[in-house]
Amino acid sequence: MKFYDCRTAPSPRRVRIFAAEKGLQLQTIEVDLRSGEQFTAEFREINPDCTVPVLELDDGTRLTEVLAIFQYLEELHPEPALIGQTAEQRAIAMMWTLKVEQHGLAAMRDAFRNSAKGLEGHAMTGPIQYEQIPELAERGRKATTLFLERLDRRLADTEFIAGDYYSIADITALVFVEFAAWLKIGIPENAKNLQRWYEAAASRPVAAS
Amino acid sequence: MKFYDCRTAPSPRRVRIFAAEKGLQLQTIEVDLRSGEQFTAEFREINPDCTVPVLELDDGTRLTEVLAIFQYLEELHPEPALIGQTAEQRAIAMMWTLKVEQHGLAAMRDAFRNSAKGLEGHAMTGPIQYEQIPELAERGRKATTLFLERLDRRLADTEFIAGDYYSIADITALVFVEFAAWLKIGIPENAKNLQRWYEAAASRPVAAS
Repeated sequence: MKFYDCRTAPSPRRVRIFAAEKGLQLQTIEVDLRSGEQFTAEFREINPDCTVPVLELDDGTRLTEVLAIFQYLEELHPEPALIGQTAEQRAIAMMWTLKVEQHGLAAMRDAFRNSAKGLEGHAMTGPIQYEQIPELAERGRKATTLFLERLDRRLADTEFIAGDYYSIADITALVFVEFAAWLKIGIPENAKNLQRWYEAAASRPVAAS
Repeated sequence: MKFYDCRTAPSPRRVRIFAAEKGLQLQTIEVDLRSGEQFTAEFREINPDCTVPVLELDDGTRLTEVLAIFQYLEELHPEPALIGQTAEQRAIAMMWTLKVEQHGLAAMRDAFRNSAKGLEGHAMTGPIQYEQIPELAERGRKATTLFLERLDRRLADTEFIAGDYYSIADITALVFVEFAAWLKIGIPENAKNLQRWYEAAASRPVAAS
């Protein structure tokens, strides 16, 4: 297996943390997103969508979506379980991971890609040129904060995001919360549950991955 | 189990088709999205994100993301397999379902929600008011067409979207392609592979679900 990574990007970091929790050593190839390596002809052969992470299996199959990579590695290396241990737990972990992706990470991506100077013409990932939409950056910032509050309400009821166990939803949310902080969108002052959860998630040794 | 549905919306249709493929009869409750039933206090108790589908389990747990519902029902009712039969097949089916969701359905949603007259103030699903961004509607239409072309290239290599078997990726893509057509974004003239796939997928008896 080969893992196409980029140290500075949030999506592949999810896989790095997941692998660290499992104690897996992945053969890693760094892709330099800042210099546009993802748009080269060589990399387009690997992933025509021009994104990382990519997990390349020994038969050449390439997995290019994080949740699919999680699912695959979980089946191969079930311990410690990071997608729950019953059908219901697995569905809940997946649901919360999707919510963080589609409401949190997506909002943050809108905020970042539609405002960063270096991303003009790259308002969406991938090979197609899309101009930035400033209103969308603003909407993304608002939606990011609202999703942080949504997570806080969830964490009033449960220790971790998917329930009383640590899961892929926590890994995804940690990456989201820390990238949001980097965009200067902090955990809201009164979000005590999210703050408590964040301290626990960020203090795991793997969080440095 | 209870299934909160809406006959006119694309997301719950994915679950209806999935259930029909499995021969499952779900106890269905219709939610009238057109009159705004998803925003009532009663429905917010069921799903604070104000969306359908929702699958409510007998212990009261509610699954509110389609892929999580697929995963759960597949584990309970493995036959016929709709998420593949090996770890690799499952990961590929999940990957393509995510791609259709995040590049296809999301683009279409941008196009629809940022232009439809009845959705002013509802440019995103959920309880928060977001004004329409006309540029985003336009970008969504462009991205929808480009994703139809992306699917066509994929289907040059494989019979179905995830490989040589019918899966949740096909169900998701069928709903995407038909909703795009309803938005008057048709299958591109030269997309022969997608056309061939569409004829097969749409002629399955369950497609009427």
